[in-house]
Amino acid sequence: MTLAILFGGSSYEHEISIVSAITLKKVLKRIAPVFIFVDGERDFYLIEADRMKSKTFSSGEYKKSKRLTLEKGGFFSSSGGLLGGKKKPVAFDVLLNLIHGRDGEDGKVAGLMEFFGIPFLGPRLEASVLSYSKLDTKLLAEALGITTLEYRVLRRGGERRVDLAYPLIVKPVHLGSSIGVSVVRSDAELDYALDVAFEFDDQVLIEPFVEGIVEYNLAGCKTSAWELSLIEEPQKEEFLDFDKKYMDFSRDSRVREAVLDEGLKERLEDAFRMIYDPLFLGSLIRCDFFVVDGVIHLNEINPIPGSMANYLFEDFEGLLERLAASLPRESRIPIDYRYIDSIQKAKGKA
Amino acid sequence: MTLAILFGGSSYEHEISIVSAITLKKVLKRIAPVFIFVDGERDFYLIEADRMKSKTFSSGEYKKSKRLTLEKGGFFSSSGGLLGGKKKPVAFDVLLNLIHGRDGEDGKVAGLMEFFGIPFLGPRLEASVLSYSKLDTKLLAEALGITTLEYRVLRRGGERRVDLAYPLIVKPVHLGSSIGVSVVRSDAELDYALDVAFEFDDQVLIEPFVEGIVEYNLAGCKTSAWELSLIEEPQKEEFLDFDKKYMDFSRDSRVREAVLDEGLKERLEDAFRMIYDPLFLGSLIRCDFFVVDGVIHLNEINPIPGSMANYLFEDFEGLLERLAASLPRESRIPIDYRYIDSIQKAKGKA
Repeated sequence: MTLAILFGGSSYEHEISIVSAITLKKVLKRIAPVFIFVDGERDFYLIEADRMKSKTFSSGEYKKSKRLTLEKGGFFSSSGGLLGGKKKPVAFDVLLNLIHGRDGEDGKVAGLMEFFGIPFLGPRLEASVLSYSKLDTKLLAEALGITTLEYRVLRRGGERRVDLAYPLIVKPVHLGSSIGVSVVRSDAELDYALDVAFEFDDQVLIEPFVEGIVEYNLAGCKTSAWELSLIEEPQKEEFLDFDKKYMDFSRDSRVREAVLDEGLKERLEDAFRMIYDPLFLGSLIRCDFFVVDGVIHLNEINPIPGSMANYLFEDFEGLLERLAASLPRESRIPIDYRYIDSIQKAKGKA
Repeated sequence: MTLAILFGGSSYEHEISIVSAITLKKVLKRIAPVFIFVDGERDFYLIEADRMKSKTFSSGEYKKSKRLTLEKGGFFSSSGGLLGGKKKPVAFDVLLNLIHGRDGEDGKVAGLMEFFGIPFLGPRLEASVLSYSKLDTKLLAEALGITTLEYRVLRRGGERRVDLAYPLIVKPVHLGSSIGVSVVRSDAELDYALDVAFEFDDQVLIEPFVEGIVEYNLAGCKTSAWELSLIEEPQKEEFLDFDKKYMDFSRDSRVREAVLDEGLKERLEDAFRMIYDPLFLGSLIRCDFFVVDGVIHLNEINPIPGSMANYLFEDFEGLLERLAASLPRESRIPIDYRYIDSIQKAKGKA
């Protein structure tokens, strides 16, 4: 299988996506991917494997790489020249969407790939939108009967008071990787935290911040069968700030399994399966759960986890291959002009 | 203002979109749009205004028109020749997304336009996804405190029994224009209706079918102020089948305003505004409401109504111009490689 890894994007998590891609290059032994970079201007570049170093991007050197265009059926390079030159497709079987945040997780990449007919690993359009918005994620969980923490939503320019007790956690509705997130303990702190969060988003989600809450992360996908990762209890500071999260995205060594009783493990896995199927078919996602008084709460769905949560799986490369072999396909819609023909006939025009 | 109208698409409503576009050509007096057609293979064509007749498409003649490519900043034609030739942009200020159903309403066009930086009238990504799925629409309405009819969801290959009393209405979750919709009165009819609906979708929504239910349609958008249409009480047969709906998409004459008391009118308008703002900014939508025992129920959101519901507005052309002048803009995300730089420094590499 030839895998294309699409990374970068016009996103606050642009750099994190680069780190993710470099990490995958290290992790993948059998699969030798081709790397397609989307820069901040949304231009595409084919990056040679030996140039997959952070400096290539931060220095702007990537601009010397081959420019690509996205068209029906794939990505193409041109031989250059005044008139554009002859087009050559980039050869790959399936593309891995590794753009974190905007462009990758908001549904744009899913839309582009589906429209241009490129098979891809990653959340489809509806799955992207529902997991990109922390608010839509709550509605989804509710519809599935999965509890989430209590919450309020504030809008930029609107009311700033909330009827929840401190401490609270303030989050932009549409960002990941802890960007713009604050824990606050007073009205003054809340006000400042809202200023920060509204820098990134028009809507802000506010939840109780529960000290010492127990968190469990579980990743997986459905191929010909369910493939769930081990369950990790992430070591937590108050919460991961951007720098720490950044390092987190370059993880490539396996973690220790959380010690938890069999009943809870099963309930976490059941919740994962309910969330995943059918919405997330075709993607490898990580769900982050809280457990409060024995009750499972969905905290977040990561439809494109950092470095694809490779560190949670025994056979990560095999998993990608099996997932690539079981992608959902768009149905083909026949266009037969039956109705136009019949109307023309009725009008005596045909 | 030069308007580009994008129509067609790989959609069960492909033909309806053609009818919509032809109708708009008739309706628009001041604005002379350019027409960009997406065929069933998702190839783009520039259709000259005098060829905007249904026959151009049903006969396949459209293939003689100029082929276009979609790239950063717009649509381009090439002068032809072996090497592709020089590219020429199609000149327009703003694009109207008039693709009904898949591609247009599922979020793909929104994703394409945002990614390639093309200003457009139509639902953004999140708005598309939430209105394209009748199930997500229910969740959205619930979150806003707007009632909807009771419902059940069935999945292809799953359980076929429902605990609701007949008559019921069976709808594919993701289609518009009454495609695959049936009213059923017995288990046998339900079974057959499910076979039909599952032809079009993996998920099917089932609701009570309320005979003689009162329906009100209200369209509008937010420009520098709210611009709401008159409220129509559509003349109903049991429900519109595809043929009738098809004719419905070519409507170009104004309708009579529904007679309803001022209180109900205000409540319908309030519900519309709650649904629209901020999710649907940039689009002109039509909301279809039921009123049962004085309670407003949201039935459906049409994020791209047939022929843009032109017949509901006094000054439709002015409305399009004012909407084009008040589009939401994607925020620009600065990419500064601050984190990569700081990590390289920490590692002594910079």
